[in-house]
Amino acid sequence: MIVLGIDPGSRITGYGLINEVSGRLSLIDAGTIRTTTDAEMDVRLGQIFFRLVEIISQHRPADSAIENVFQARNPSSALKLGQARGVAIAACAQGRVPVFSYEPTMIKKSIVGVGRAEKSQVAFMVARLLGVSKPDWAVDASDALAVAICHVNQQRFLRLADGSRNHG
Amino acid sequence: MIVLGIDPGSRITGYGLINEVSGRLSLIDAGTIRTTTDAEMDVRLGQIFFRLVEIISQHRPADSAIENVFQARNPSSALKLGQARGVAIAACAQGRVPVFSYEPTMIKKSIVGVGRAEKSQVAFMVARLLGVSKPDWAVDASDALAVAICHVNQQRFLRLADGSRNHG
Repeated sequence: MIVLGIDPGSRITGYGLINEVSGRLSLIDAGTIRTTTDAEMDVRLGQIFFRLVEIISQHRPADSAIENVFQARNPSSALKLGQARGVAIAACAQGRVPVFSYEPTMIKKSIVGVGRAEKSQVAFMVARLLGVSKPDWAVDASDALAVAICHVNQQRFLRLADGSRNHG
Repeated sequence: MIVLGIDPGSRITGYGLINEVSGRLSLIDAGTIRTTTDAEMDVRLGQIFFRLVEIISQHRPADSAIENVFQARNPSSALKLGQARGVAIAACAQGRVPVFSYEPTMIKKSIVGVGRAEKSQVAFMVARLLGVSKPDWAVDASDALAVAICHVNQQRFLRLADGSRNHG
């Protein structure tokens, strides 16, 4: 199962594609979409949209996963973040990829084991879980990979829970 | 010139299509997109996205206009509004329709003549400017028509300013 993780932002959007086969995770691609800083907001949002549509059409993920954000410093940054999140979700809708949202604490817990982990701990574990000894990706790409791994873990858990219900 | 005005919202998104020929405005269509209230947010955003893509593909507007929002009651509502705005902008990007943003005061000034007009005054003038004696559209559709008219006025103003520069 190929999963696309997205860490949306109006300046930098991170993305990460992973593959899970029989419980084994592997990295497909990870990177960032950097928007033209002096362009109008709608142009920048268009850049995120088209690049994500391209990535989805290239890799055809089964699911996409995105961090659920409830908090923001102020209404202005919440609006910007919401817009970036909106175009990311629209790109998934366009590619007919279901979107799953996860709380930040849930992602950290899924990767590190505790909900209050440091960013560096999450990054370390993301690389380790994907078997990459020298990760060369940006922090936003790492965050995108983290939510993708969280989704795979969650799906695996649901399958196991479903299996034990059926056979237990 | 056909212009699509959009008033985005996660629950209700208003849209309005107007046509301007030689300074005369006419109504093409106006309505609202109501999302399924008990559906997940990404499904609701997908509904807005697909309906707007449909409207754009049906009417092929030259431009789209959307209210610029800087203020929101709190970060949570700003995030929701931002997401709806993001999918609206993504639908325009998908249909290759340029997006123009206008401040609320600018829209009111363009329609009523003053930046601090009441919503009812804006609605009254929108219907009047479009030559509709008994408007049957919802308030969100009226707001969408208002920003579309504001854009037409602004473009007309820019053409006149450009003309007077060239010939003056």
